[in-house]
Amino acid sequence: MGASLKDVAQLAGVSVKTVSNVVNNYPHVTPAMRERVQRAIDELGYRPNLTARHLRKGRTGIIALAVPELGNPYFAELAGAVIDAAARHDYTVLLDHTAGLREKEVLVSQGFRAHVIDGLILSPIELEADDLLGRPGDAPLVLLGEREYDAPYDHIAIDNVAAARTAIRHLAGFGRRRIAFLGARREMARQPAHLRLRGWREELTAAGLPHDDSLVAATDAYGRWDGAAAMNALLDRGAEPDAVFAYNDLMALGAIRALVERGLRVPQDVSVVGFDDVEEGRFSTVALTTVSPDKQAIARLAVERVVARLSGAPQLQPERIHPGYTLVARESTAPRTG
Amino acid sequence: MGASLKDVAQLAGVSVKTVSNVVNNYPHVTPAMRERVQRAIDELGYRPNLTARHLRKGRTGIIALAVPELGNPYFAELAGAVIDAAARHDYTVLLDHTAGLREKEVLVSQGFRAHVIDGLILSPIELEADDLLGRPGDAPLVLLGEREYDAPYDHIAIDNVAAARTAIRHLAGFGRRRIAFLGARREMARQPAHLRLRGWREELTAAGLPHDDSLVAATDAYGRWDGAAAMNALLDRGAEPDAVFAYNDLMALGAIRALVERGLRVPQDVSVVGFDDVEEGRFSTVALTTVSPDKQAIARLAVERVVARLSGAPQLQPERIHPGYTLVARESTAPRTG
Repeated sequence: MGASLKDVAQLAGVSVKTVSNVVNNYPHVTPAMRERVQRAIDELGYRPNLTARHLRKGRTGIIALAVPELGNPYFAELAGAVIDAAARHDYTVLLDHTAGLREKEVLVSQGFRAHVIDGLILSPIELEADDLLGRPGDAPLVLLGEREYDAPYDHIAIDNVAAARTAIRHLAGFGRRRIAFLGARREMARQPAHLRLRGWREELTAAGLPHDDSLVAATDAYGRWDGAAAMNALLDRGAEPDAVFAYNDLMALGAIRALVERGLRVPQDVSVVGFDDVEEGRFSTVALTTVSPDKQAIARLAVERVVARLSGAPQLQPERIHPGYTLVARESTAPRTG
Repeated sequence: MGASLKDVAQLAGVSVKTVSNVVNNYPHVTPAMRERVQRAIDELGYRPNLTARHLRKGRTGIIALAVPELGNPYFAELAGAVIDAAARHDYTVLLDHTAGLREKEVLVSQGFRAHVIDGLILSPIELEADDLLGRPGDAPLVLLGEREYDAPYDHIAIDNVAAARTAIRHLAGFGRRRIAFLGARREMARQPAHLRLRGWREELTAAGLPHDDSLVAATDAYGRWDGAAAMNALLDRGAEPDAVFAYNDLMALGAIRALVERGLRVPQDVSVVGFDDVEEGRFSTVALTTVSPDKQAIARLAVERVVARLSGAPQLQPERIHPGYTLVARESTAPRTG
C-alpha cells in the first residue's frame, strides 16, 4: 500500500537516486528538479519511511521546537506549521515552551533532552549571545524571531525594521500624526536590538512626525491584558494618540478592547495596527490590520536548515534568512477625518 | 546549587522516602501529605532530576500529546498546561496534531515513534473504539475530549452533557426561547455520542422550549470561519434564533462576527454562549459568555495517570474522570427585552 520511491521516480521521469536526494533534502539539487520531484510526490501521496534509517544512523527522528508560549496563537500557529514541515521530512517535533525565561532558554539551547533530539529550533526572548558559546554536542540549532545574535547559527526571521516601517507608513498615509508604540521592552539596554521600535522611530523620522517618549508604552509581557493596560496607561497620561502600532496582534486586540471601553472609536478616533496576523484578528468585531509574516516559509526554512545539516551538509555556512511579509489592511485602520 | 530531596524532607518534616513517593507520584500517599510535601517543594524550588533514572529504566522521559489542531487556542492552552504538568514530573512532551483525521489518530494510538515515547495522551475526534483494540506495546494511553469509548483506557473529560445543559439554562433564564446549536456533526450515526448536542436537547425539553432541526447547524469543522458560515446559513433559512449555543468558542466568535455584519445586536437581539473559555473570548469587543472547563485539572490529571502507570502502578483500573467546569457569564448574553 502506498507509492514507493520507484513510483515517484517513474512519474517524475528521474532516477531513484535523484528522488532520494530530494527526499533527504541533500544540497546540489536544482530548484527546478526539486519542484518536479515534489509534484510527483504530492500527486502520488508518497510518504518516505525514514524512521528505520533514522535509527540506523543513531538518530531519533525528533526535532525540538522551543517557543516562548503556546498561549500566544502566533507561536501555536507557527508550531503547527513546523510540525507539518517536519512531517514532510519524516521528522517529529518535540515541543517545549520557555515562558521567555533566559534560564529555560539556556537549558534548551544547551541540549536538554539531548539524547532524544537530532536538532533544535529555538525562538528566544531573553537569551544572550554569550549563552550560545560553548554549546555542547553537534545537534543543529536554528534561531527564530526578532532577536539578532552574533553567533554561528542560522537565523530565520522577517526583516522586522522594514516590516515595522511598512506599518507606520500605512498609518501616516491615512493622515495619522500621533502614532503610539505599544510593547517596548523595559530595559533600555535592550533598545538597540528592539527592531520593531527602531522601525517605528525611523519611519516617523522619515515622515517628519513626532516620536517622543510619551507615545511609547513599555510592558513586561506581550499578551492581550498587557495591550489593554498599556493603552490605558498611555491615555491616562494624556498622550492622545490618533494611531497605535502594537508589538503584536494580542496587544493590539487588548488595546482595541481598552479603546472601545473608553468610548473611543476604532478606526475613526484611533487606528490600530498589529503584528503576526493571527487568525483571531480576522474575526474580531473590528477586524485587525496587521503585519503578516510568512509563517509557512519560516517553518519550512527552519526545518530545511536542520534537515540539511543532518543529511550530509553539516558544514553549511550559517545564514540569516529573511522570509517575506505583507501588510494586511482590514477594518482597524482608516483615514483621519476632520 | 539547588535544593535536594533531603532539604525538602527536612523542611516538610517527613522522611526522604515520603518525598520520593510524592515526587514519583506513587499511589497511597494521602492528599494532605502530598500537599505538605508539595509546599516544601515549591518553597525550595526543588526540581527532581529524574532524567538519569528514566534512562536506567530504559525510558526516555517523553510523553506524547496528540491534539486535533494547535490553531485552536483551546488545544494550544491545553498543550501548554500539559507541558507544565509533565515538567513537574520531569517529563517532556512530544506534541503532534492529527487534524482530527482518523488515519492520523490511529497511527498515533498504535505507537508512532513508540521507541521514544513512554506514554501517550490523545484527544481524538474521529477515532473509533475498534481502532483501540489490539494496541501494541504497553505504553500507557490516556484519552481526552468529548468522545466516549468502550475501551480499557483512562478517559478524562468534563461532563459535557451537564455543561451544555448549564449553558442552555443560562440562556433560558434570560428569557431566550429560540436557542440554536452551531456545530453539530454531519454524520447522524455519530449523534448519540454528541454530548453537547444531547445536553442542548435535554435542557430545552426540560424547559419546554422548541428544539426543532431548523435550529441546528451542522458543520464539517469547528473554526471561526465555520461558525460564521453556520450562523449565516441558519439566518438565511429564516430560523430566527434569539440565542446561540456554539460547539466551541471559535465558532461562537465567528457567529458573533456574522451577526454583527448583518446588523444584529449581540447580546440584545441574539445572545451567544461558547465553550472552552479561550483567552481571546475575554478580550473580544463583545466579551464571550462561555463554558470554562478546568484545563489545568485536565492536564494535571492526564499527566498523573500516565506517570502513575509508569511509576509502579501499571495495573490501575481504567477510570473516567470528570474535572470541573464553570459557566463564565460575560457580555454576549443578556435578558430578552421587548
